[in-house]
Amino acid sequence: MNSLVDELSIKNDTKIIFLVMDGLGGLRSAGKKGTELQVAHSPNLDKLAQDSICGLMDPILPGVTPGSGPAHFALFGYNPVEANIGRGVLEAAGINLPLTDRDVAIRINFATRDADGNITDRRAGRLATDINKRICEKIRKNVSIAPEAEFVIETVKEHRAVLVIRGDDLGGDINDTDPQKLGVPPLEPEAGDEASGKTVKIVKRFLEQAHDLIADEPAGNTMLLRGFAKHKPYKSMMERFKLKTLAVANYPMYRGVAFLLDMDLNPVTADTKTEFEAVKENYDKYDFFFVHVKGTDARGEDGDFDAKVKVIEEVDSLLPMLTGLNPDVMVVTADHSTPAEMSSHSWHPVPVLVHSNICRVDDVQTFDEIACINGGLGRMPSMNLMPIVLGNAGRLTKFGA
Amino acid sequence: MNSLVDELSIKNDTKIIFLVMDGLGGLRSAGKKGTELQVAHSPNLDKLAQDSICGLMDPILPGVTPGSGPAHFALFGYNPVEANIGRGVLEAAGINLPLTDRDVAIRINFATRDADGNITDRRAGRLATDINKRICEKIRKNVSIAPEAEFVIETVKEHRAVLVIRGDDLGGDINDTDPQKLGVPPLEPEAGDEASGKTVKIVKRFLEQAHDLIADEPAGNTMLLRGFAKHKPYKSMMERFKLKTLAVANYPMYRGVAFLLDMDLNPVTADTKTEFEAVKENYDKYDFFFVHVKGTDARGEDGDFDAKVKVIEEVDSLLPMLTGLNPDVMVVTADHSTPAEMSSHSWHPVPVLVHSNICRVDDVQTFDEIACINGGLGRMPSMNLMPIVLGNAGRLTKFGA
Repeated sequence: MNSLVDELSIKNDTKIIFLVMDGLGGLRSAGKKGTELQVAHSPNLDKLAQDSICGLMDPILPGVTPGSGPAHFALFGYNPVEANIGRGVLEAAGINLPLTDRDVAIRINFATRDADGNITDRRAGRLATDINKRICEKIRKNVSIAPEAEFVIETVKEHRAVLVIRGDDLGGDINDTDPQKLGVPPLEPEAGDEASGKTVKIVKRFLEQAHDLIADEPAGNTMLLRGFAKHKPYKSMMERFKLKTLAVANYPMYRGVAFLLDMDLNPVTADTKTEFEAVKENYDKYDFFFVHVKGTDARGEDGDFDAKVKVIEEVDSLLPMLTGLNPDVMVVTADHSTPAEMSSHSWHPVPVLVHSNICRVDDVQTFDEIACINGGLGRMPSMNLMPIVLGNAGRLTKFGA
Repeated sequence: MNSLVDELSIKNDTKIIFLVMDGLGGLRSAGKKGTELQVAHSPNLDKLAQDSICGLMDPILPGVTPGSGPAHFALFGYNPVEANIGRGVLEAAGINLPLTDRDVAIRINFATRDADGNITDRRAGRLATDINKRICEKIRKNVSIAPEAEFVIETVKEHRAVLVIRGDDLGGDINDTDPQKLGVPPLEPEAGDEASGKTVKIVKRFLEQAHDLIADEPAGNTMLLRGFAKHKPYKSMMERFKLKTLAVANYPMYRGVAFLLDMDLNPVTADTKTEFEAVKENYDKYDFFFVHVKGTDARGEDGDFDAKVKVIEEVDSLLPMLTGLNPDVMVVTADHSTPAEMSSHSWHPVPVLVHSNICRVDDVQTFDEIACINGGLGRMPSMNLMPIVLGNAGRLTKFGA
């Protein structure tokens, strides 16, 4: 499906605002009158729904709970199973570290071990970021894995860093070396195939030298490696859909996904209001605005129904800042559900609305998970949304004679 | 799709009751106020629907009428087209004959022919089962197809038996030898490919010896072979979904499907009430209870609208025996539709309800084919049901980071 849509996509002057309220989908909690969206006072969303086509979407597959990575890939029209991304790559993307197709990316947790080599703290007491930076710099200057490969090491935050091994024909099918418990040494990396065997040899050389260098650190005298992932570059939104895209998102995970799809990244802003202002400020410069609101997911994860309702109400009150720009296509949806009732991501489908001048308005009167059941989009995979958005934007040419 | 769900599935302590009312889907008959389900007084099903998420399912594809075999495979999450099973295999499974991946299974109808070799009775006067057994025993003792292969022959009932040819590299692409009319001899078996050619040679050797042995039988002096099928073993429900499963079903066809998926088989019981009692008695021992009610289909096949309504009402009155166990997930659905109006299976989608504490209840107020149109599950392939059931049971881990 994707390649056909890619082939049909054309450039024009339309503007698309694509608002993702993370984890928006919910459930009725005990003692509440409905889901978070049903309970929220959200007149602007409801009014928009009345003038839109609505529906429900399964992020990955019915019954399957998605991580945020694949859920966002699906929203952007990428097959979330094929495009599934390793943790290491996502971590590297989250700090906007450019990767190549010769790279295996790995998450590092600096940890502390005792004289016998057994782990005493898997996070090295949440190492100060400054110390992390100093350790990385020491490794960068003194470790060499040439000529087989080179490496990049970058601090993320606290005890976390990213390691990239760059070389020819390297595989990423390698186990985590984090034993997930204390009182034992780190695990040895082991390869699942021949190409990964090559990576393991190089990683062991890296670890030997690096461990010597950091042996005297009081905290962070060892490294646990996780999420080994060979990077497979993605086609960009421009390449696929001819969309010049700005990502307005404040959290590393979502900035990382945007970075991998070669979206431009708006600087981190203070809150939802400043995010929406950024759309206005950049409105002339882009075709497609990915606007990410984190609060709905965060409060859902907290299990705080009322706080999630408040986030929805805040977004609703600010919505005219976006709709007032009169985009050709306005989308409101979610990457996945995060019901406060479950305090976690869930597999429940997400509500979606698509507004344009040619969107064939249905009878949905309120924007919520139950009303959207009877929306004109029906229930569909999230991956189908982008072609519908492009169609509404007049950005897909006719197929066939 | 299946392999992703398989990979994500985990074991936990939840209980799932999966009630299949065979042929439940119906149509409005002339002079009736609705479908069988709409006309039936079924307050327990309606109450359950009000607390569930509902929808409609296409067993195979829209417009395609399924046999019971593929329709059940779809319900259990198996691709009904890929998993489609030969008649011979289904007949063998129906008498719980264990098959291997070296087997071609074949249905035998004992028939009678005259001195010229022309068939005079395609069912040998519905041979007494005892005579069938005696004939099979004679064949078993005196026929040999060694060393190329061995065979198993087992009586089913009346004129029906099962033949299994077991050997290396045998194919099952072979025509029925039943000419479907009288006054002509049986057809010769012919192979559609090379591997099946090997089977045909062996079958001819078998038939030559067997026909000599039974030539003097007054009824049942020949054999018609049907439904040649190479057996491809299925992954079990345990292997795929980590579900320890009990099948509570009283008819050979459904016990056969359950047998092929390695479910445990409850002994045949007297009626629906004793089936539901069996669930209660075995409740601690299993994760998943496949409960099969045959009457809805049988009365539909009879074209007896009112009798089908009565079966629905009986099941409804007994339903609290199942819901009273408070399973984590309760499913009510059908394998296919059997409208009394048509006296046959049909392609119409089937209603489904899924009840759990996290099922995102929709607005459906009555459990019937029309109300379910507006259910939150929408319209989906039957094969999607199992992942949704597993999701509701918390038995699928998150996909991706």
